[in-house]
Amino acid sequence: MNYKEIERKFLINNLNFIKESFDHNRIEQGYLNSNKNRAVRVRIKNNHGFLTIKGSSNESGTTRFEWEKEIPVAEAKQLIAICEPGVISKTRYLVKANLHTFEVDVFDGDNQGLIVAEVELSSENETFEKPEWLGKEVTGEVKYYNSQLSKNPYKNW
Amino acid sequence: MNYKEIERKFLINNLNFIKESFDHNRIEQGYLNSNKNRAVRVRIKNNHGFLTIKGSSNESGTTRFEWEKEIPVAEAKQLIAICEPGVISKTRYLVKANLHTFEVDVFDGDNQGLIVAEVELSSENETFEKPEWLGKEVTGEVKYYNSQLSKNPYKNW
Repeated sequence: MNYKEIERKFLINNLNFIKESFDHNRIEQGYLNSNKNRAVRVRIKNNHGFLTIKGSSNESGTTRFEWEKEIPVAEAKQLIAICEPGVISKTRYLVKANLHTFEVDVFDGDNQGLIVAEVELSSENETFEKPEWLGKEVTGEVKYYNSQLSKNPYKNW
Repeated sequence: MNYKEIERKFLINNLNFIKESFDHNRIEQGYLNSNKNRAVRVRIKNNHGFLTIKGSSNESGTTRFEWEKEIPVAEAKQLIAICEPGVISKTRYLVKANLHTFEVDVFDGDNQGLIVAEVELSSENETFEKPEWLGKEVTGEVKYYNSQLSKNPYKNW
């Protein structure tokens, strides 16, 4: 599977998204390459493994080439073992807001204190409802890329 | 598919391997990461795509963690487009020598002039017949890793 990923990213104003969420998952992920022009990510989510490759983004930071394959979780564990230092773990809350679903990542470990909400869109200009807990937009700010958080975690900011 | 790859690598004395070969293939490959501890390779061989991840090798350079999946060739082409500069192309000759098959890579482009023969073994101590054209062993010499040839090609040696 490969496609152009179009998404916008925000900080949050408060924790109300937790009580509004309909599901949450634990995610652990490492990078075989954290270079933002060819990021190679290994993820374990709900005991499923995924290998994801992301290219560079367009100027606004909204759109990015993405390729993803599900892989056996045992293989994902072996691949995480050879990843760059700085494996990321987080809890992802899923929150419906009218037609869209926000993914809100509550980081732990070296990124504890950071919470980032993302919404995936089908076109660059698509509008979406903004819940009251949704804060400042940080789309395209490279330091919020998970690949960068593994190298320069929130605790160092 | 993942396994420990056990192989030994040699230079060659002469071109007799060509007439002894039973098959040959064109290979084009790029690296999403050329780091030798977590190399991520995209390969196109006979119109088939492959994604391969290799970990660091043991001290002798003989054994290395390897993970590989076949992927659609159209996806391999998209991934090669975002690889590091220095895509490698070569012709691989397959040569039987008693119980083993040597893979002899004749590089072109920036690595023209370099020819490397490899044999895959099922254990570190396994013996094998050495054809007269087989030259000096270079197993474990990092500069002969294809990932390194993409960054520091033979023409610069």
